[in-house]
Amino acid sequence: MTIVWRAGIHLPILCAIPVGAATYGVASRNDVAGVAELVDAPDSKSGFFTEVGVRFPLPAPPSQDAFHHEFLLKLWRAGRKENSLVNFCSDCGASVVRKIPHGDTRHRWVCASCEIVHYQNPKIVVGCIPERDGKILLCRRAIEPRTGFWTAPAGFLEVGESIAEGAARETLEEACAEVEIGHLFASVDVVYAGQVHLFFTATLLGDFAAGEESLEVALFDIADIPWKDIAFSSNRFALEQYIADAGSNNGVHHLVIKHRSPTSPVPI
Amino acid sequence: MTIVWRAGIHLPILCAIPVGAATYGVASRNDVAGVAELVDAPDSKSGFFTEVGVRFPLPAPPSQDAFHHEFLLKLWRAGRKENSLVNFCSDCGASVVRKIPHGDTRHRWVCASCEIVHYQNPKIVVGCIPERDGKILLCRRAIEPRTGFWTAPAGFLEVGESIAEGAARETLEEACAEVEIGHLFASVDVVYAGQVHLFFTATLLGDFAAGEESLEVALFDIADIPWKDIAFSSNRFALEQYIADAGSNNGVHHLVIKHRSPTSPVPI
Repeated sequence: MTIVWRAGIHLPILCAIPVGAATYGVASRNDVAGVAELVDAPDSKSGFFTEVGVRFPLPAPPSQDAFHHEFLLKLWRAGRKENSLVNFCSDCGASVVRKIPHGDTRHRWVCASCEIVHYQNPKIVVGCIPERDGKILLCRRAIEPRTGFWTAPAGFLEVGESIAEGAARETLEEACAEVEIGHLFASVDVVYAGQVHLFFTATLLGDFAAGEESLEVALFDIADIPWKDIAFSSNRFALEQYIADAGSNNGVHHLVIKHRSPTSPVPI
Repeated sequence: MTIVWRAGIHLPILCAIPVGAATYGVASRNDVAGVAELVDAPDSKSGFFTEVGVRFPLPAPPSQDAFHHEFLLKLWRAGRKENSLVNFCSDCGASVVRKIPHGDTRHRWVCASCEIVHYQNPKIVVGCIPERDGKILLCRRAIEPRTGFWTAPAGFLEVGESIAEGAARETLEEACAEVEIGHLFASVDVVYAGQVHLFFTATLLGDFAAGEESLEVALFDIADIPWKDIAFSSNRFALEQYIADAGSNNGVHHLVIKHRSPTSPVPI
C-alpha cells in the first residue's frame, strides 16, 4: 500500500484509518509523520488502498470529534511540532533532508542540492482589547477555527508593520474599527502551535461593524463578557489580565501554554 | 546575456556591475528583483557574461563599502522587503507565482500547481540584559553581522520554547551563563528586516565564558558600557531603557525602526 503524493513520490501507508465518510492514511518522510486523506483510489470503495492521489501532509487535522484513533492525532501533532513540513527547497526546487547543519545544534530542513537551511521559527499574533466608556469590543468569529465564538481582534503580524500597527490593522479588518493602541500588557507563548500572542490595550475611537471574518461585533460590559464562549485560551488570559489591571500599566503578564490539552475544545 | 540559475532557469541580466574582484548581476523573476554573483562564466575573464552558473538570489548583499551603484542596493533591498524570495513550492516542488489569494488583501507566494499559499511573517529575536552586583554582561560577537562589536545575548526564537526560555537559551549559548529571567521591558520592531526584538531583564546566576559565537564575554559597570561599539540599534535602545528603568517595571518601552539608515553602519 502506498500513497502517491501528487508530485509523484510513493510513500508507504503506515496505517489507513476510516474516519466518518473519509479514510486517512499515515505516512512518514524524512523521519516526520504526516496524515493524508486517501482520495481517488482506484479501489477506494473496497476499503483497500493500493495507490491513491493525495496531498501530503494534510494542512489541518479532521475535526477532533470524528477521531477515534488517538494514535492518528498524536502523529499529526508530532508532524505539526515543526510548524510545517518541508518537502522541497523553496530556493532551487530540489529535495530536502532533515539534519543538523554544521555549527548548529538542532535538526533543520536542509536542501540536498544547494544546502540552504530552511529555518522554521514561531509566528507572532498581535491583538488588542478596544475599550470605550468601560465597555470592551469583541468579535464573534465567522471563520475556523472556533467559528461562532467570541474573540478580541487579533491576527498574524505581517512583514512591513510594527506590532502596534498590526494590532490596529487586525481591529480595522475584523471590527471595522479604528483604535488608538495603548501599552503591551499580555504575552502568551502557544508553544505547541509555534506562536507568540501579544496583546495591547486600546481605545476605541469611532464606529464599528462586522468585518469579513466576523459574524457580529459588540461592546460588552465587564460583567457581561461571554466567558463560556471565548474562542481561545490566550484571549481568555488577556481579558482576565486586562480587567485585573484596571487601566494601570503593571508590565506584561505572561502565560506559557506548552501542550494542547487533549480534553479541551479550545485550540489555542 | 542570461543568468543560469542552478536549477536550470535562464533569467536575463538587467545589468552586470563589477564590485571589487567580483561581478554582480541583477535579474528579476515574478516581478521581484534579485542580485546574484556572476561566477564560473565561460568568458568571465573578458568581463562579458553570456551564460553563468549562479545562486539566485544572493543570500546577503556585498558589503556596503564596495557598492558604487545605489541602484543595485535599492533593488536588493526591494527584494528583501518580503523577508525572503520563494522560487519553488516547499510542499510539492512546483513553481510559485506572486498574487493576491482569494479572500486576502496582500500579494503572497502561491504554488501554481497545488495552490498552497506560502505566508511569510516576521521573526522573533529574544534577548536579555544579565545583571549581577550592578554590572551588565555583554558579549563581543565572533560572527557576522557586526563581528567584534558588543551585544546583549540574543537570537532567534526557536519552535518549542517560550520567549523567556529562548532568551535564557541564547545566554547559555553565547555567554555560557545561566540566568533567571525577569520581566519583559523592551520591544523593537525592526520592520525592514521583518524582525521583532524582545528584551527581558535577567539576573546572572553563575560563571560565564565565551560561547562559540562570542570572542569574549565581560561584565561592565554602567559607566563603562562601550556605547560606541554596541553592535545593533535595538541593543543600544534596550540598554538605554534598562538603565533608565533602574530596576523598576515601567511596562514595555517600544522602538520602531522602519528603514535601515543608508548612512548608518549599524544594520539593526
